[in-house]
Amino acid sequence: MGVYIQVLEGLLLQEQQVISSEKLAEQCEVNPSQIRKDLAYFGEFGVRGVGYYVSDLLKAIKYFLGIDRNWNCILVGVGNLGRALLRHQQLAQKGFQIQMAFDCDPFKIGERVAGHEVICTRRLKEKAQQMQIDIGLISTPPERAQRAANHMMQAGIKGIVNFAPTRINVSQDVIVDYVDFSNHLISMAFRLSHP
Amino acid sequence: MGVYIQVLEGLLLQEQQVISSEKLAEQCEVNPSQIRKDLAYFGEFGVRGVGYYVSDLLKAIKYFLGIDRNWNCILVGVGNLGRALLRHQQLAQKGFQIQMAFDCDPFKIGERVAGHEVICTRRLKEKAQQMQIDIGLISTPPERAQRAANHMMQAGIKGIVNFAPTRINVSQDVIVDYVDFSNHLISMAFRLSHP
Repeated sequence: MGVYIQVLEGLLLQEQQVISSEKLAEQCEVNPSQIRKDLAYFGEFGVRGVGYYVSDLLKAIKYFLGIDRNWNCILVGVGNLGRALLRHQQLAQKGFQIQMAFDCDPFKIGERVAGHEVICTRRLKEKAQQMQIDIGLISTPPERAQRAANHMMQAGIKGIVNFAPTRINVSQDVIVDYVDFSNHLISMAFRLSHP
Repeated sequence: MGVYIQVLEGLLLQEQQVISSEKLAEQCEVNPSQIRKDLAYFGEFGVRGVGYYVSDLLKAIKYFLGIDRNWNCILVGVGNLGRALLRHQQLAQKGFQIQMAFDCDPFKIGERVAGHEVICTRRLKEKAQQMQIDIGLISTPPERAQRAANHMMQAGIKGIVNFAPTRINVSQDVIVDYVDFSNHLISMAFRLSHP
């Protein structure tokens, strides 16, 4: 669904109000039957012979996905990847505001990165509870990911996106998503080997 | 499949030679029927009442995925994300060797990052052709991603993994994979909103 949002937002910027399913499929690089299937939930915005009303379709997808609102995020691990995430402008534009950044390295604590003062991870619970935090991002080295997750769970955070290349254990009421770069490379290797 | 490799390699390190499909499913956090379906290709390694031979199953998956060999990669864009990728130890361990790093920023050219000297992007074609490069990683800001892709295509690279949050145009014989962090956050928002 991410690609639909990206393309539809681009169309809005160009002030295009209607798009045919064929054109939308082409721009999203999916086939037209797939797009009609994916967007069947939003059928009312598809008008036979016309296409989709861009703005209404975008709103419906965002509502469906739960991104018609802001999500407060925190980040643990201000290394290179953490800095890249803190500076990633599209996350905030899409409603994912990284509100605070934590690290346990005394040389980083107090540093300002993309407008955030890096806070000692031990203060995560205290700081995170001052604000309703929805999602925690882990960008620590793998050996510190579990500790970061523990701090997040103690602060009552129910969604963790783990960028560290390791599995973490969480309680049953916490949702984890893994971002593993090597999976993308594996998938590319597979596609290149099976042309 | 990435998670199976991660778990199976962990088992090998622990010198575990056989694992039941139930245990494997549990460790991979997928359900047992899914794992049996996914691993049906590798049926000969599943022994009824015993489970899977870890080492043989791992070899078969790697062969199937095309990662029983090394893949030469280059990277364009030595910002925070590029540095994180250059320092990512598991990529090399999984056979994805980043051989060269390029950037067009004169302040970065000549700098050493994780053992690589940063090279001017204009020299990409010349440098990349000295070695068979299979995969190009783009970690530039979005507005420079297309130019990086053009340099890669001119050097004959057929697989591009684009970490920049923008679509790129490539010729028909080039495969592109997009790594979009916001998709993971969107997916998390969806899961948190539909408990």
